[in-house]
Amino acid sequence: MAKTRICVIGAGPSGMSMVYNFSKMETGNDAEIVCFDKQDTWGGQWNFSWRTGTDEYGEPCHNGMYKYLWSNGPKECLEYPDYTFEEHFGKPVPSFPPRPVMRDYIEGRMKKCAKDLKACFRFKTAVRFVKYNEMPEDNFSVTFTNLEDNKTVTETFTHVVVAIGIFNSPKIPNFPGIESFGGRVLHSHNFRDPNEFKGQRLLVIGASYSAEDIAIQCCKFGAKSIISSWRTKPMGFKWPKGIEEKPLVEKFDSNMVHFTDGTSAEVDTVIYCTGYLYLYPFMDENLKLKSPKLTMYPDNVYKGTLWLGGGNNKVFYIGMVDQYFSFTLFDVQTLWTCKYIFGELNEQTQREDLEKSMKEWVNRRNSLKDCHDEIDFQGDLITVLSKDTGYNIDSGPVGAKLFHTWEHQREADIVTYKDQCFPSIYTKSMAPAPSCKYSDALDDSIQAYTGAK
Amino acid sequence: MAKTRICVIGAGPSGMSMVYNFSKMETGNDAEIVCFDKQDTWGGQWNFSWRTGTDEYGEPCHNGMYKYLWSNGPKECLEYPDYTFEEHFGKPVPSFPPRPVMRDYIEGRMKKCAKDLKACFRFKTAVRFVKYNEMPEDNFSVTFTNLEDNKTVTETFTHVVVAIGIFNSPKIPNFPGIESFGGRVLHSHNFRDPNEFKGQRLLVIGASYSAEDIAIQCCKFGAKSIISSWRTKPMGFKWPKGIEEKPLVEKFDSNMVHFTDGTSAEVDTVIYCTGYLYLYPFMDENLKLKSPKLTMYPDNVYKGTLWLGGGNNKVFYIGMVDQYFSFTLFDVQTLWTCKYIFGELNEQTQREDLEKSMKEWVNRRNSLKDCHDEIDFQGDLITVLSKDTGYNIDSGPVGAKLFHTWEHQREADIVTYKDQCFPSIYTKSMAPAPSCKYSDALDDSIQAYTGAK
Repeated sequence: MAKTRICVIGAGPSGMSMVYNFSKMETGNDAEIVCFDKQDTWGGQWNFSWRTGTDEYGEPCHNGMYKYLWSNGPKECLEYPDYTFEEHFGKPVPSFPPRPVMRDYIEGRMKKCAKDLKACFRFKTAVRFVKYNEMPEDNFSVTFTNLEDNKTVTETFTHVVVAIGIFNSPKIPNFPGIESFGGRVLHSHNFRDPNEFKGQRLLVIGASYSAEDIAIQCCKFGAKSIISSWRTKPMGFKWPKGIEEKPLVEKFDSNMVHFTDGTSAEVDTVIYCTGYLYLYPFMDENLKLKSPKLTMYPDNVYKGTLWLGGGNNKVFYIGMVDQYFSFTLFDVQTLWTCKYIFGELNEQTQREDLEKSMKEWVNRRNSLKDCHDEIDFQGDLITVLSKDTGYNIDSGPVGAKLFHTWEHQREADIVTYKDQCFPSIYTKSMAPAPSCKYSDALDDSIQAYTGAK
Repeated sequence: MAKTRICVIGAGPSGMSMVYNFSKMETGNDAEIVCFDKQDTWGGQWNFSWRTGTDEYGEPCHNGMYKYLWSNGPKECLEYPDYTFEEHFGKPVPSFPPRPVMRDYIEGRMKKCAKDLKACFRFKTAVRFVKYNEMPEDNFSVTFTNLEDNKTVTETFTHVVVAIGIFNSPKIPNFPGIESFGGRVLHSHNFRDPNEFKGQRLLVIGASYSAEDIAIQCCKFGAKSIISSWRTKPMGFKWPKGIEEKPLVEKFDSNMVHFTDGTSAEVDTVIYCTGYLYLYPFMDENLKLKSPKLTMYPDNVYKGTLWLGGGNNKVFYIGMVDQYFSFTLFDVQTLWTCKYIFGELNEQTQREDLEKSMKEWVNRRNSLKDCHDEIDFQGDLITVLSKDTGYNIDSGPVGAKLFHTWEHQREADIVTYKDQCFPSIYTKSMAPAPSCKYSDALDDSIQAYTGAK
């Protein structure tokens, strides 16, 4: 039998969990995992980059995070059962950590590992194309470029794990007249520092998490006025002074924006908070997950993880869903993937059974009515994977309970919800209140955060 | 013998010339040419796009042109011998056309063709990977994605012509402290409208054509002050009021820029005019031209056109040089490529002869001393290709003569050189003076340009 050789694409939280869980397996000496990433280190989106557009090697910038991004969900819902925030920081810390804290935490678990996990990664390497070779080869040709020396090489792997995340290809719809707009136009993916927009009149297009977060942040850092424009329905929060909601943009006429309700306004900058495309340009047609919009469960994926399209049961997609749980979800998905690859699961083997199970999830997905349904759905998926693998059985249901509370708090007050405290599912400790209210916090450093009251 | 099937990558001026010249060949009925482009029409860089970063399909934006870009070389040096500007517009027109005029002109020649050339193009299609299949196949597997339906397909071709141009992957070096800069940072590739920078203090990094053009344009459209920062040597022009030159940036400290001469200045926006990377990420290793910086003649390319690296003499690179002549160069290169493919040239066939010729050009390239040497060099390359193919024999030497004059005019006055007039090499008509001086012209429309005095 061929030596197991796993190709992981992406070294963000999903790829890191995959390598971490692989390292805990009893695989014998000859199994190998190689995790590719364009960046020069692990952490994926959690690495801040001042760059936008294309990176120093001409590759599309993966990073879309901005300087003052704080987790918008409680950290208790994404904690690793075997490595809590309390263990990482040596004490309980507040529930909504800023970006540098999140990166420090996920790196902490990797560094704690006895093995040198960095040896499993090939950084500054872009995967160009993945092609399945039919029987008798029954493996994958993975073509990749070392970006430093610009060498393109093809290697063979037995399994492929796609872990590139869902925030890398900005979706930027056209609006009539946008080419006549005389100010700056950017997508939230390229938003870096709210100080760039001090004193400006902003138009934020979109009505989801990014629109809400960027509007509030720019308001906090001194933008003159912010209009948020919605397509389906307004966010409807009690906004701080300076933010208002309007229906969709009808057209631009130079710097004047006309909305579908007949009103208009002059703005300096347009920030698209219009979400992302879900693309896998490096996957051959029969291996490519197709999901035109973000979904709670993509078609053709068994237990949200095993790709059924290629007919080979050797391709896995991690975290390619509308995420509530994030790190915990990626962790249990990759644990499941490891155990599946090494035959440690009591899994169905008949294709029709796999498809039947997948279709049940897809049917339930189609019946989800609101965010609370979605939270329970994702919690249940985690529970199924937890039962299969022996992952902590509380992660799904208790996490879902915390998320329900969080949703109510957000709806009640969009400005203060990041000041709330949640208990750890695993240590049971209640998080302390942050030392500074989110609406006043201008310092997102690890020091400021962990010096909490 | 296999049917000739040519894959052209890129539908800008080079790809358009390739299809145009192919259409004039007597190939019999079974030869086919397919020109792929990510955009939805031909014209390459000459199509203006308001988008920056990635396009509507998540692909890196090809376009780097800005609203008020005017040709910085005289149009007489890039005219097609068989389709002059005078023929296109029905009268002589000024020598330095704005962007929309240039696009109209190159499209004009395509439209004049009896055949429906558009049928040879597959727009909204991104080439993913090109791989050579050794004998006995002796052909190329070209994998591409139809961006509209996200379908990835592999087809077989007998020849591959790379025509993606040299202005698509911005080169963006790091400077210490740049991540602390609180203003906007962009590359000239993402510069669209000088009105975005009205009233601002700008730092332009670079000392070549883009730096010069963007500095003067922003000055014209009301930027408050512009510092241009050079690495090797200052441009040294007599700048209009508001523009000054400083040596290289040493570091950024928030919005304060420190230069290597010990001076510093506060700026609002940083515009990198630092050139481009020359990358062919879709070409397999043995087919990939490697040129870390822009050169007058890349290594390993016979007569600047035929790729010698793969050992198959079926891959061609068009216009991958520091361009003076542009359209004319692409036109004669693609004519040569067509005639070479169909065996109509008296070409050397021994590999050692091809390499010997290539090395002579590389040696001469290595001895070039200044822009005048470079102009003569490129003129001579055009002459060699013209003699081989029967292209107009005046294009190289007379074009070079005009370029020498142009260089002297630029050096004498960087603000007025675009007001000068040149004679057409082919019609002999002298261009009329522009109706409005470049320093006053705020209208770059075809109408304004052709209504010249």
